[in-house]
Amino acid sequence: MPQPVKSTTITGMFPRICIVGVGLLGGSFAAALRARGYRGHISGCGRRSMADLVSKGLLDSEEESFANNQVCYADLIYLAAPINNIIEFLNSKGHLIKPGAIVTDAGSTKREIVAAGSKIATAATFIGAHPMAGSERTGPEYSNPQLFVGATYIITPTETTDKDAIAKLELLIRFLDAHPVILNPEDHDRMVALISQIPQLLSTALAAQVGSDPASESLFGLAGNGYRDMTRLAASKWSVWGDICETNADNLADGLDKLIGSLSDLRSALKNQNEKAISDYFDRANTAAEQLRQTKVKLFSQ
Amino acid sequence: MPQPVKSTTITGMFPRICIVGVGLLGGSFAAALRARGYRGHISGCGRRSMADLVSKGLLDSEEESFANNQVCYADLIYLAAPINNIIEFLNSKGHLIKPGAIVTDAGSTKREIVAAGSKIATAATFIGAHPMAGSERTGPEYSNPQLFVGATYIITPTETTDKDAIAKLELLIRFLDAHPVILNPEDHDRMVALISQIPQLLSTALAAQVGSDPASESLFGLAGNGYRDMTRLAASKWSVWGDICETNADNLADGLDKLIGSLSDLRSALKNQNEKAISDYFDRANTAAEQLRQTKVKLFSQ
Repeated sequence: MPQPVKSTTITGMFPRICIVGVGLLGGSFAAALRARGYRGHISGCGRRSMADLVSKGLLDSEEESFANNQVCYADLIYLAAPINNIIEFLNSKGHLIKPGAIVTDAGSTKREIVAAGSKIATAATFIGAHPMAGSERTGPEYSNPQLFVGATYIITPTETTDKDAIAKLELLIRFLDAHPVILNPEDHDRMVALISQIPQLLSTALAAQVGSDPASESLFGLAGNGYRDMTRLAASKWSVWGDICETNADNLADGLDKLIGSLSDLRSALKNQNEKAISDYFDRANTAAEQLRQTKVKLFSQ
Repeated sequence: MPQPVKSTTITGMFPRICIVGVGLLGGSFAAALRARGYRGHISGCGRRSMADLVSKGLLDSEEESFANNQVCYADLIYLAAPINNIIEFLNSKGHLIKPGAIVTDAGSTKREIVAAGSKIATAATFIGAHPMAGSERTGPEYSNPQLFVGATYIITPTETTDKDAIAKLELLIRFLDAHPVILNPEDHDRMVALISQIPQLLSTALAAQVGSDPASESLFGLAGNGYRDMTRLAASKWSVWGDICETNADNLADGLDKLIGSLSDLRSALKNQNEKAISDYFDRANTAAEQLRQTKVKLFSQ
């Protein structure tokens, strides 16, 4: 088990942190730092009123440098805006980041963001990242200092990313009690489509289907825990998912193709009373469910 | 709010209860009766060793009448075996049920069971039922006296079913702290396919898909709560689902058809970057998720 990361280490490494986009993730990042004893300065900027978040103590100050086209002196820039806003920020404000700073993000797709990050016109280091944590809720009012605890936190450096900066980001992630995992941006986008984004689209389709049924009200009255679990993600907002669908459309379409194939197999097997074909799916799913359960145990016993 | 049902009422109405098939549901039914102060006699029979369940106190005795082709004197027969076993029991042992007894079941599809129940060759009353409670676990070792609490408990009488018997069964269901709902067997099978069985097949397909991926081990390492929720049902066993798929194949195939249609829409919209089409699904799913949440509140505030 690795040593816990001290708050003095993180405060010393990043005396000034700026969060760009203070929603659920950005707010939880600030709350998590504070809850673990981080003593540096946290500023924030974005579309929301920062004054409110400063008065509530989540932030120390509003970050005004970027809006004023001045250099930002933060040692760590944490981009937690929607994906396309992150890309636009990197393109239009990247030159205002101070040399030597580390810039990371929390976007759910990585290829386009990493491409934009690699073009920052200063000597700052960009490292794409994706905390596998979140909620169907949005907004800093749902900030949760424990949001990252136990979560897989993917980082997607490129071959030329500075190794010291990667090591620092890993320490920060462990400070949040999350588990850093390194992937390249292409593998990230394919894998996350399968394990996170396709399940979202399925949950959306399933809820929309029952919602459109003439008997929807009675159907919801019959819903048990199974249906509730399967449609929890259906509350997720298009304001978050629009950018994901746009920047990972190829992987999502491929994943849906395979799933449509599986469901068509099942449908044919039902029509033909081909018991063996359906039971094979159940057997494979049982094995996968067991593998998943063991993976969890492994993670928590590390 | 209706009056709570007294244990003396249930004990008086059903002094002897026989459970046929003592697995998770049958065992939980016995445990729920005991936990609420039922003082009558509970017997059980099935493929498992009943001696074990008697020694653990879940049952008072093994029911041997049916095996010996003798009349069973229980006032309530609770059929909690797999669907095809229930049907076979009704066909081959129905004549051994004493006149005046109420026979009900806990099977997840109703048309075929109700058809078999209507042919019992004695003056007992059969009322099909389906508690919307369960678990991906099977076996009496997972018996839970609170399994039915707050659950919707569907009963599917026919037009000729004795009204007094229906009223008694409703009292029993309320005694378990579940909510009785009356549906006809056809509506039941169509609605439960949509709200419970299609979600199961989806969960199975989703888990099988990731399990078959060459990178499955790494993928499971990335799984967050969303994927875990969506694949919890994937641990369900074919031993339970085989009969469901067989006896509700038409409704399941229809429901899968519609879902495949939705997913194909989403896939085309992704390929064509048709943002509007995908956002419509998210909007409809958001509305449905909200409706579902409000339905839950209604249920609990009854």
